[in-house]
Amino acid sequence: MEFSEHIKTANVEDVVLRRPFHPPMQGTLCVTGHHLLFSNRDGDSSRLVLLLLRNIDAIEKSVENLLGYSSLFSSTGQSQRFDISVTPCVPSVSSGTITLKCKDLCVLQLDIPGMEECLNIARSIEYLSSLDIVSDMYPFFYRPLKLSLQDQWGLSSPEQNYAQMEELDRWRLSHVNKDYSVCPSYPPAVIVPHSIDDETLLKVAKFRQGGRFPVLCYYHRKNGMVIMRSSQPLTGANRKRCREDELLLQAVIDGSGLGYIIDTRSNQQAQQARMTGGGFESKSSYSCWKRLHRQLERGKVLQESLIKLVEACGDHSHSVDRWLSKLENSKWLSHVHTALATAGLLAECVERDGHSVLVHGSEGTDATLLVSSLAQLILDPNTRTLDGFLGLLEREWLLAGHPFQQRCAHSAYSHARLRLEAPVFVLLLDCVWQLARQFPLAMGFSEPLLLRLAMEVYASDYGTFLCNSDQERCAAGVKERTHCLFQFLLKPSEREHYSNPLYEPTELAIWPSIQPQSLQLWRGLFLRWTQHAVHLEKAQEELRNLVIECRGAS
Amino acid sequence: MEFSEHIKTANVEDVVLRRPFHPPMQGTLCVTGHHLLFSNRDGDSSRLVLLLLRNIDAIEKSVENLLGYSSLFSSTGQSQRFDISVTPCVPSVSSGTITLKCKDLCVLQLDIPGMEECLNIARSIEYLSSLDIVSDMYPFFYRPLKLSLQDQWGLSSPEQNYAQMEELDRWRLSHVNKDYSVCPSYPPAVIVPHSIDDETLLKVAKFRQGGRFPVLCYYHRKNGMVIMRSSQPLTGANRKRCREDELLLQAVIDGSGLGYIIDTRSNQQAQQARMTGGGFESKSSYSCWKRLHRQLERGKVLQESLIKLVEACGDHSHSVDRWLSKLENSKWLSHVHTALATAGLLAECVERDGHSVLVHGSEGTDATLLVSSLAQLILDPNTRTLDGFLGLLEREWLLAGHPFQQRCAHSAYSHARLRLEAPVFVLLLDCVWQLARQFPLAMGFSEPLLLRLAMEVYASDYGTFLCNSDQERCAAGVKERTHCLFQFLLKPSEREHYSNPLYEPTELAIWPSIQPQSLQLWRGLFLRWTQHAVHLEKAQEELRNLVIECRGAS
Repeated sequence: MEFSEHIKTANVEDVVLRRPFHPPMQGTLCVTGHHLLFSNRDGDSSRLVLLLLRNIDAIEKSVENLLGYSSLFSSTGQSQRFDISVTPCVPSVSSGTITLKCKDLCVLQLDIPGMEECLNIARSIEYLSSLDIVSDMYPFFYRPLKLSLQDQWGLSSPEQNYAQMEELDRWRLSHVNKDYSVCPSYPPAVIVPHSIDDETLLKVAKFRQGGRFPVLCYYHRKNGMVIMRSSQPLTGANRKRCREDELLLQAVIDGSGLGYIIDTRSNQQAQQARMTGGGFESKSSYSCWKRLHRQLERGKVLQESLIKLVEACGDHSHSVDRWLSKLENSKWLSHVHTALATAGLLAECVERDGHSVLVHGSEGTDATLLVSSLAQLILDPNTRTLDGFLGLLEREWLLAGHPFQQRCAHSAYSHARLRLEAPVFVLLLDCVWQLARQFPLAMGFSEPLLLRLAMEVYASDYGTFLCNSDQERCAAGVKERTHCLFQFLLKPSEREHYSNPLYEPTELAIWPSIQPQSLQLWRGLFLRWTQHAVHLEKAQEELRNLVIECRGAS
Repeated sequence: MEFSEHIKTANVEDVVLRRPFHPPMQGTLCVTGHHLLFSNRDGDSSRLVLLLLRNIDAIEKSVENLLGYSSLFSSTGQSQRFDISVTPCVPSVSSGTITLKCKDLCVLQLDIPGMEECLNIARSIEYLSSLDIVSDMYPFFYRPLKLSLQDQWGLSSPEQNYAQMEELDRWRLSHVNKDYSVCPSYPPAVIVPHSIDDETLLKVAKFRQGGRFPVLCYYHRKNGMVIMRSSQPLTGANRKRCREDELLLQAVIDGSGLGYIIDTRSNQQAQQARMTGGGFESKSSYSCWKRLHRQLERGKVLQESLIKLVEACGDHSHSVDRWLSKLENSKWLSHVHTALATAGLLAECVERDGHSVLVHGSEGTDATLLVSSLAQLILDPNTRTLDGFLGLLEREWLLAGHPFQQRCAHSAYSHARLRLEAPVFVLLLDCVWQLARQFPLAMGFSEPLLLRLAMEVYASDYGTFLCNSDQERCAAGVKERTHCLFQFLLKPSEREHYSNPLYEPTELAIWPSIQPQSLQLWRGLFLRWTQHAVHLEKAQEELRNLVIECRGAS
């Protein structure tokens, strides 16, 4: 694709940039295929602000002519196009203002002399910030000197994960999905009960939505219990059964007597799902499995919750009541609460009650992954190191088929009609932040890592979060033609920045308090740009330096 | 007074004590004149729990006899007496449970074998926890080995404070109140404009409620501006004037042109005060003073806010919505917000606008002190050291006549009819905590100090917070017959514990963000006993040790 045809005005002088924590800056604005570039020459030194166009969630334009006439248009990417014919044409003396609302929640403003220039630039941003074709996106163009495309992509493979397990006689690695034909959203290799052959898996896959048959995602060394995940069974209105599905689940609890199914929908939702071909594991067909329902919100409800929360955080009304009421109304902390509570329940089933658990909702690509990965953080000390946490994200989110491209197409500012967007991954990061806050010594990684991930998932130089599944990433050549974020974050220089200086590994499970009073708003993310976090950051930096210095000396 | 006549049962064996963060303990309960003493012999070591009776805010009894009949009575100190005649009399097999709700917000439970013993102990606690006579209170009996009654009492005197000022030709120390006859709630010496003689002060005192004529409480070195405080002028319905009062205020701004009056009541409240003899400084009589009204709540409203907040913090309903809604309903954070915002306004008048300010509400002993001391913390680096902060509390709260005994007679659990109680000082500590959280390097003291003060103000071994004024403390012999908390906190061993290891003094004013989003619930105080803060405390301790170790090495 030729980006230049979408850039009518590439350079404008005397633009004023306004952004949080900085005085306004005058300089030159430049639009490239993937960036806004703002530079000012302040005496000898020149300052540069680089903004990835992909980071822009919404853009608002206001143009003004000699007569003081001002008009405000707002649009987002492809949803609404700005119609130039409605604006008065006095270009020589008019100017315009573009407000950029970014996916990392930062809001910038550009005052641009010349109405036509302003409109041209706005149009370029609108188009280029919402490219649809994966191979047009910036990670395919990002070529830093220090990284090579020959570097390893990803952290580990299902093969390596399997090799680290115990009781290998009970579990096996199946390559039934090696060409992604059985389940397009699964990786080529998955771990299943040893006694279940590929023929059986094929039949089970047909009985589960999107082919997501039950696979192992966590093996608890202390007692040999496991966490499995899948999508819903397609029982439908006629309560269809699948003997192979029942066999597979029986094989999971073989010998241990009883298993739990945590359904991330309410009982009513699960019942209703039968009307559209979905369903749940009935007591009669799965007599050794006890079903527990915990309703986790997903999709539109979650997206709207984020939008309301961000709106509340940007409210400048100076009323405490109003703020708390808006915070409550957004329901975001309720979603955090439910996710942590359900993960706690899952972890309790495994560690305290000594039972294996199957988790699923309907598709098994959102709430299911949220709950299973939080439970692993609670139970498994290996997932709490920096490497282990990124490995968990790779296994449980990237390879497990969370549709990142669909879910993170827009963030909280877009006025676009939202369809598949949902901040499930941001909710995960928030829950992990709550865990880390409650157990400040137990995590090997730090808040800056979570903040960086919250940003990268929406707009990135790296290919890691592109596409919706491993299959799509392979098809697009992501692993050959882009760099891997996780590999980069583990390089020595970055590793130091994202490690927790207070880290003291513990083998114990970390049981989070799920009293509502124990949960806090993640100010580091949601109030990052709306208040002066500068003093707090300075103190954290000071602390970090002291501790590192101290540890180095001893 | 003979305490023993109020102790019918002094010892009970086989009592079970239940308290937060500890497993139940069986042992011997002992009631003394000022303490509950619980000891258990666990193998070789014996453990001891000591509870100051004064710390008990409310007590609930429930007795149970053979028939399983259970009755619950609740009472607080003197308000409601338990009537033994209503309880069934089967003492040999019955037992009772006493729930103790403490002023430090901790809730304990004692299971006591023997109904009569239980009732006797409850009756003793009820009586002894709410002694009225100051000289009966524990500080008059506390004689630790390390402290001597000959040690200095208090940190500094008005004379010393005056000696540290500049522009001594503009200000003088007046001893007009040396026998407390002019203003019973003021100290014997106060700082007033040099040109105003004691005769004039006598007349001004008659024109201000409780004799609280305007006195200097802060001198801003950078520009010579001052903060004065007083009570309301007694203008009454007839808009009475007092020439001497006008002269005094004129002398304050002599030369600088304009002063501000910050009235801590709404305009309407100030107008209404005229009906009961109070009032405000009218524009016509005080033409060089600009009046600003900021309504700060006090008294009953504030007390009820605390009660609601503590109730919300103890709610175990596991609903985030309910929690946030209760938090909002308590209005506590709104009070924090208003106090900080008003203090910020006051500090802005002094530092940014370069004007002197007079603060008052009606009595001038609550909101006035809150605002003036917070403004000093914002402006004056000397008040942000450990010594300086305790000195500020001494000057602006103890010597300035905040009626501690009345305000802190009960805390959030008491069912007693509240009359003069109000957690103004706790609100101050919360605001200081918010400041310290926003400026983690700027304060020389740490959260544990604020927590300790929040406890000591309600129940203490020390005499510091006894009585309602300097006059009362002198009359009761507090300074000769009790130990001084502030002196104790500054001893090397304590000082280390209460210092901020990250402290980096700054000469600059620290302007707090008063966006509602910037305020947080003070979990360290309000959720101290209701959730496991253990991990957080462990991390803080770790940090503290590291930093101290590190600073020591370098």
